[in-house]
Amino acid sequence: MSGSLPPPQPGMAGLQRRVQAWCDAEWGGEYWPPLGNLARLIEEVGEVARVINDRYGYKPKKADEPAQELALELGDVLFTLIALANATGVDLDAGFDAVLEKYRQRDARRWR
Amino acid sequence: MSGSLPPPQPGMAGLQRRVQAWCDAEWGGEYWPPLGNLARLIEEVGEVARVINDRYGYKPKKADEPAQELALELGDVLFTLIALANATGVDLDAGFDAVLEKYRQRDARRWR
Amino acid sequence: MSGSLPPPQPGMAGLQRRVQAWCDAEWGGEYWPPLGNLARLIEEVGEVARVINDRYGYKPKKADEPAQELALELGDVLFTLIALANATGVDLDAGFDAVLEKYRQRDARRWR
Amino acid sequence: MSGSLPPPQPGMAGLQRRVQAWCDAEWGGEYWPPLGNLARLIEEVGEVARVINDRYGYKPKKADEPAQELALELGDVLFTLIALANATGVDLDAGFDAVLEKYRQRDARRWR
Repeated sequence: MSGSLPPPQPGMAGLQRRVQAWCDAEWGGEYWPPLGNLARLIEEVGEVARVINDRYGYKPKKADEPAQELALELGDVLFTLIALANATGVDLDAGFDAVLEKYRQRDARRWR
Repeated sequence: MSGSLPPPQPGMAGLQRRVQAWCDAEWGGEYWPPLGNLARLIEEVGEVARVINDRYGYKPKKADEPAQELALELGDVLFTLIALANATGVDLDAGFDAVLEKYRQRDARRWR
Repeated sequence: MSGSLPPPQPGMAGLQRRVQAWCDAEWGGEYWPPLGNLARLIEEVGEVARVINDRYGYKPKKADEPAQELALELGDVLFTLIALANATGVDLDAGFDAVLEKYRQRDARRWR
Repeated sequence: MSGSLPPPQPGMAGLQRRVQAWCDAEWGGEYWPPLGNLARLIEEVGEVARVINDRYGYKPKKADEPAQELALELGDVLFTLIALANATGVDLDAGFDAVLEKYRQRDARRWR
């Protein structure tokens, strides 16, 4: 790993602000409570599962649905994930960096 | 909604590149097949569910675990979501924009 | 706990046979591979999440949908869970008994 | 399908009573609210996902864990599913029958 990775970029901060702006404009600044937000996340992940199974599963269906269907479903998950992070005060850039660092240490341990 | 939202920013592109760099360095450039990646996503969402239930559920536990636990779990979901997008050729910035546009039209219809 | 519980009943065996009969008749005796079956399980759990959120969530919708909707969605999860157990050779009565025993020991330890 | 299926058996009723007895003895007769119960269900499904990925996924691990691990995880899902049904007043035998009937009609329509 190490020096070959691109430097961290505050990629999520902008998206978290956009979801906050959406929340302010559409939901009066109030997020769903975390458990309801989580239920929403599950619902969206379930729709990703349906599309993945249709396209990459045991008996793939003909792709009669527009190619961007998976992009929309993954976008729904991303939006809901960000809403959950905003509602619970999580900085997703920091979370993402921490996860990469966790993986890095785990893999370093594996190969030592 | 309207003009008050911040302009779109290519926030996910940088993160997708970082996950790709991770994949190149650690997995030989090869992602898990989509169904396995999806299973991984479920596993990570399940860990988010555990933390959400502990902190915001019926009988919240004392937060004896470090406060960044939820950030790490949401970061795991984000990483896996991006890996799934990379493996299936999805542009998450475009997916996110399409989702916001879908919500905008849905809400516009609701209030008309 | 102890003696007050009803005795174990082979409740799942009959249902596992019915799903097997369905599989034989409709799928030529062949289940989806486990990862695809799991994706199906997620999809069904996602639909349960939608109904639970609508009925018990932050802003419950009027129950304009028939009351048995949740029964159908939980039934879908149950069917898929059984298909997954059949496909992987799991005896769900034994699994259920083992889980109750695990909970019993966990709770006994908690109170000692 | 046809007449070859075993007759319906009230398989879930006994299990729903056992979970109710557990709830009475251990939780003072009170289930978690539906959204918390759903979060628990996700957590358990996530553990099934981990085991399925380990055993049937891209790079299966050596089965160094006891063979009944999957049975326990599926049993956890089953227990939580039943708790959710009990807490929301769902008769799972009726739900299961309704689902099989729904599938039967769907398949009949497909082949006509």
